[in-house]
Amino acid sequence: MARQLFELYGTDPARVFSPFCWRSRMALAHKGLDFDSVPWRFTEAARLAFANYDKVPVLVDGDAVVVDSFAIAKHLDAAYPDAPSLMHGNAEPYAFIGAWTDTVLHAGVAGLVVSDIPPLLDAADSAYFVQSREARFRKPLAEVTAGREDRLPAFRASLLPLRHALRGRDFLGGAAPDYADYTVFGGFMWARSVSPLPLLEADDIIHAWRERMLDLHGGMARRAPCFGA
Amino acid sequence: MARQLFELYGTDPARVFSPFCWRSRMALAHKGLDFDSVPWRFTEAARLAFANYDKVPVLVDGDAVVVDSFAIAKHLDAAYPDAPSLMHGNAEPYAFIGAWTDTVLHAGVAGLVVSDIPPLLDAADSAYFVQSREARFRKPLAEVTAGREDRLPAFRASLLPLRHALRGRDFLGGAAPDYADYTVFGGFMWARSVSPLPLLEADDIIHAWRERMLDLHGGMARRAPCFGA
Repeated sequence: MARQLFELYGTDPARVFSPFCWRSRMALAHKGLDFDSVPWRFTEAARLAFANYDKVPVLVDGDAVVVDSFAIAKHLDAAYPDAPSLMHGNAEPYAFIGAWTDTVLHAGVAGLVVSDIPPLLDAADSAYFVQSREARFRKPLAEVTAGREDRLPAFRASLLPLRHALRGRDFLGGAAPDYADYTVFGGFMWARSVSPLPLLEADDIIHAWRERMLDLHGGMARRAPCFGA
Repeated sequence: MARQLFELYGTDPARVFSPFCWRSRMALAHKGLDFDSVPWRFTEAARLAFANYDKVPVLVDGDAVVVDSFAIAKHLDAAYPDAPSLMHGNAEPYAFIGAWTDTVLHAGVAGLVVSDIPPLLDAADSAYFVQSREARFRKPLAEVTAGREDRLPAFRASLLPLRHALRGRDFLGGAAPDYADYTVFGGFMWARSVSPLPLLEADDIIHAWRERMLDLHGGMARRAPCFGA
């Protein structure tokens, strides 16, 4: 059986927008591993029963069923030690980078683009998404993103640690990308896949890094459907 | 010649308060390496001419003169590969943790405690410190920290990535501390060494981690002079 990555989709069968799925698809590409992307939607929890999980990404790799993007990255390094390494034998510091990405980058992106997502989903998923996210934000999604252009400077300021970390090197991994880059890049691919809002200014060192990330692995991310941002 | 670490001091010959010096002294303890702490003060740049540098920490280790705390950590791993590792052969992701610490934790701590520092310095250093920091903040230091109790909740909220990263494990390094822990811990030792302000609430997972850090290496950090915070 071919390697399968269950990923979140909306109505467009080519538009992967989950930041966590982007972490895993970039990680697979980094290892040089082919995979079939299996479309999964928010309301299809039952289809992941085999994995005893209710979220994606889920990787089916031979006999291994691996849930959670971080666990998938660890699995790939353990199962394919001869392929280029993602975390170089020590996953611990990458957990901090994941924690920053989840709590700062993703939280910031959500507040800027969450209202762009429902139109990309089918009716059942859209209803689920709006209800669950409005419960989380405690307000209508249109209110969450209202005035977002005015909040871009504060969002960009929140990326200062990333900006500092990129000083003097091409990737968070150093001369070459590693799982630190894929972890953070997923957040930008999420925004790019669902929203026309330009998150970054063109003279931002983060913008140049994102361009390099888009070019990796034969331009895999650059070719993905986006709104031009 | 014994190993020497040039560190920042004020008038108290026991009170090391630079967060970067704390990174290096904890790193040396982690490696099990003795060192003599050489007191250095802000206005003694000329005494570092041998290192072609104007800041501390500076490590003199046999024939090696190493400046900058991150470079010191790399040097220690390279020079003492058989001692417990600080960065496990891959320093890159630790640079991100350093960038977060410098731009979020240190910036937050500075805004809360900077006015507590001048009384700990001798006259020449105090004048230098006040002048240079007021230029940086563009206001008197007493104004920088005014109303600081009211800003503690926002400061604590800014530590959310650290809080998430510590979930389910004792240290950022996993089951044992590594240079990720020492990098962040330096910021807390800076605050603790100069100010009575209680940065953390007692039920914060970060507080429990800081307690564990204070106990490491025979309680080296816990024994250091502090204001009880």
